[in-house]
Amino acid sequence: MPRPGREGGRRGRTAGSGPERSAQPFITRNIPPYEILGEADLKIIEDNADTILEEIGIDIKDDPDSIATFVAAGASADGARVRFPRGMCREIIQSSAPNIFTQHARNPARSVVIGGNHLVLVPAYGSPFVYSREGGRRYATIEDFRNFVKLAYMSDGLHHSGGTICEPVDLPVNKRHFDMLYSHIKYSDKAFMGSVTAPERAQDSVDMAKIVFGQDFVEDNCVLVNLINANSPMTFDSTMLGALKVYARHNQATMVSPFVVAGAMSPVTTAAVAAQSLAEGLCGMALAQLTRPGAPVIYGNFVSSMSMQSGAPTFGSPEASMVLNIGAALARRLGVPFRSAGGFTASKVPDAQAAYEAANTLQQGLMAGVNFMLHTAGWLEGGLAMGYEKFVMDADQANMLAVYANGVDMSENGQALDALREVGPGQHFLGCAHTQANFKSAFYRSNIADNNSYEQWMEDGALTAEMRAEKIYKQMLADYQAPELDPDIDHQLVSFIHDRKMSFEDSNVA
Amino acid sequence: MPRPGREGGRRGRTAGSGPERSAQPFITRNIPPYEILGEADLKIIEDNADTILEEIGIDIKDDPDSIATFVAAGASADGARVRFPRGMCREIIQSSAPNIFTQHARNPARSVVIGGNHLVLVPAYGSPFVYSREGGRRYATIEDFRNFVKLAYMSDGLHHSGGTICEPVDLPVNKRHFDMLYSHIKYSDKAFMGSVTAPERAQDSVDMAKIVFGQDFVEDNCVLVNLINANSPMTFDSTMLGALKVYARHNQATMVSPFVVAGAMSPVTTAAVAAQSLAEGLCGMALAQLTRPGAPVIYGNFVSSMSMQSGAPTFGSPEASMVLNIGAALARRLGVPFRSAGGFTASKVPDAQAAYEAANTLQQGLMAGVNFMLHTAGWLEGGLAMGYEKFVMDADQANMLAVYANGVDMSENGQALDALREVGPGQHFLGCAHTQANFKSAFYRSNIADNNSYEQWMEDGALTAEMRAEKIYKQMLADYQAPELDPDIDHQLVSFIHDRKMSFEDSNVA
Repeated sequence: MPRPGREGGRRGRTAGSGPERSAQPFITRNIPPYEILGEADLKIIEDNADTILEEIGIDIKDDPDSIATFVAAGASADGARVRFPRGMCREIIQSSAPNIFTQHARNPARSVVIGGNHLVLVPAYGSPFVYSREGGRRYATIEDFRNFVKLAYMSDGLHHSGGTICEPVDLPVNKRHFDMLYSHIKYSDKAFMGSVTAPERAQDSVDMAKIVFGQDFVEDNCVLVNLINANSPMTFDSTMLGALKVYARHNQATMVSPFVVAGAMSPVTTAAVAAQSLAEGLCGMALAQLTRPGAPVIYGNFVSSMSMQSGAPTFGSPEASMVLNIGAALARRLGVPFRSAGGFTASKVPDAQAAYEAANTLQQGLMAGVNFMLHTAGWLEGGLAMGYEKFVMDADQANMLAVYANGVDMSENGQALDALREVGPGQHFLGCAHTQANFKSAFYRSNIADNNSYEQWMEDGALTAEMRAEKIYKQMLADYQAPELDPDIDHQLVSFIHDRKMSFEDSNVA
Repeated sequence: MPRPGREGGRRGRTAGSGPERSAQPFITRNIPPYEILGEADLKIIEDNADTILEEIGIDIKDDPDSIATFVAAGASADGARVRFPRGMCREIIQSSAPNIFTQHARNPARSVVIGGNHLVLVPAYGSPFVYSREGGRRYATIEDFRNFVKLAYMSDGLHHSGGTICEPVDLPVNKRHFDMLYSHIKYSDKAFMGSVTAPERAQDSVDMAKIVFGQDFVEDNCVLVNLINANSPMTFDSTMLGALKVYARHNQATMVSPFVVAGAMSPVTTAAVAAQSLAEGLCGMALAQLTRPGAPVIYGNFVSSMSMQSGAPTFGSPEASMVLNIGAALARRLGVPFRSAGGFTASKVPDAQAAYEAANTLQQGLMAGVNFMLHTAGWLEGGLAMGYEKFVMDADQANMLAVYANGVDMSENGQALDALREVGPGQHFLGCAHTQANFKSAFYRSNIADNNSYEQWMEDGALTAEMRAEKIYKQMLADYQAPELDPDIDHQLVSFIHDRKMSFEDSNVA
């Protein structure tokens, strides 16, 4: 049985789109997905993925157990190289993986539905650095981590607390997962992600989730979504697969995501990247299903293009947008939820580069039909830095995605013929009954954009978006009030963490 | 007969996407449009537009000639108010307006095809101010105008020289159109737009075009595209319609564009904005067809949402994106080219707000299937300022739209199975034959984005995108070399302008 905390205090006055809108726990699309490729081309990519799996194979490093599982299911192994008969992985996945599932939050009102026509927006993940106007770029700490958990909690546009929002490098590598998980639980009541950096840390994540949600509830329900990266090209290692198997065994969701910088970890061409990523995803998701049929899986796709001068990853590019779009279509055809997109940028600061690149990918993610958008907010510097200002800017964009996803109101009120009749040619609509009745919800109100006159803007200090964002995140942190957490649960978590931390030495070797 | 100048000198080394790509004269989409609404909902909006035209009507101010034309075609008039039987305007347009046409440039290699699956990207239009980091915000001059013509000429991503790129307020209101047109002709060889601020200025534009292209050529071919705004809601004035009729009589294209700030000039709801804009567009385009059947028309759509606090227009919003998308679908159903979108923003400076808002609309314009994208580059401050840095930033985005529009290469080379076989699991693709053969054209190379490491970026001066853009536009202006212009034509233009300018007094009353 889950014992969720109740939502406490006043939330996010500055974070939402105005007092008139209430936060949705997740987005439900009323708009169709955009499909850049037709049926025949998608089939070619699926066939090529099968060719990769059958002919070239996938290397499964240092994990004889997983190799044995695959061989028992019909694959052949030659050392670490595993080859799969055409269609084998797809059949395994389609026979048991759910195409939609609920990830429970400790506040049931914030549980998210992953898959179908739903979209869950999630903070960025994994940066060792943080960036703010005030502090510049520096290593992240657990204090930063808590701050971002608080900001995500207060942002209506974000539906999830995320995972390793930033790496708390002030804590030992082998113990920081305890503090990260505790922060998600303590400072937010949104759903969160588990640790994947070692199988035993995955087990710790499950054990902590059991304290929060109850032993039986966790075995029957998804309360953790967990990011499993392939070592592209066509390789998985025992760390990631070890974590995957721990989560699958406990019926928790794994998001199998090839992480591809095209040109380095895949061919440079879009159709090839799509096929390789699908092959890698099929392999990982099949292992989850073989471990426990029915354990939720998400097909993930993280693809960036590459600067062919410097080898650096690039973001917001048209090539990456196309791969993203194809990935979404492939996931729909496979019948599993899809993860991709986010507020990506290679920029070091939240400037115009950061915003163009982020908006390009956020828009394409929405249109493609992404279900779980990790990295929605905060991403800077190719994922090396989590930006405070960037976070609230992206969260503002996240709100806009929700409005667009709602689609067009075709009701009589939406058509507004009476307003047109009432006002007529040459008059203005500001005071008419329809405008009065609808103006509070008519247009999304950005908390970042300055739409005032130049003169007013000058009078207000001629602030850039970055400077306005700085004020907003600081105000949010000042206003933050924690959601209630059952003191019993809190106590159990603290003592579990204490005991576990005492049971082995600190280490900063991953 | 056109007597086009030849392309002179070395062009735009810094402006394109790298030396390996050659400039396309316009984009041809290999991707399908995105349709947010289905057939039934689009039909409702068309029916509502007919209801507006039939029941409410359109005010035609101070223009008895146009009213008489409409009445002769079956409309009824009550003073300035003209009402149209259902379907009348649509039938008139569909019986004679071309669904695709060529606008000729004086360099035939730069002529653009407007309509169908083509996309022409055009500089922003109409701002009285310019903005640069160096000079801040100040009134525009003819020197600025020339600079933007040069920048557009050198930008591979822009296919057109535009029209009133900025208002040269140092010249008399009633004569500046001569200098603007001459600048387009002299400093560029891309297609351009005519003056619409008075019928006689439209005639001057046609007369100057005849000097460039030849008398007969102009009567048989489109060499000018001209922006005709409705005075929304549901009103046209004699200035705009006067210009429309001049152009239509000479077989030149008119782009009939309701300019709507929703909430002020239309109801606040998307379906109503779409219906009202369509009604206004149908009325204007029908007049062009009644004036000269077959004269090219473009259905335009300029819609911004409104800040319900301040009344200021807002940009890059989800509501405006939806109207844009519907407008494109309505134009396809009507069978005329569609104009909308651009690098819109309310920001005063080229910061993150500017870039998020611009990217949101640029992406949506591409996906919707826009054919003529006025305002692609340079727009700041709700159209009040033309930005130097913003211009080259948007032109960079324009290049990316072209790449995305090319779609996915599904050739054998695109699928790259041999590269996957050659490299195999766990290896990198940097040196493989496929990468070597494709890397020059594999990924779009932004000239604005900095993808380097933080350390490298610091070493390079920690420049923001705006600072890098400043360097780029200055270098472009320093590198600029004019295209050749036949000295005879140049001479004729100069003396035509001289004679016309001498024939009436300067005035700064519009």
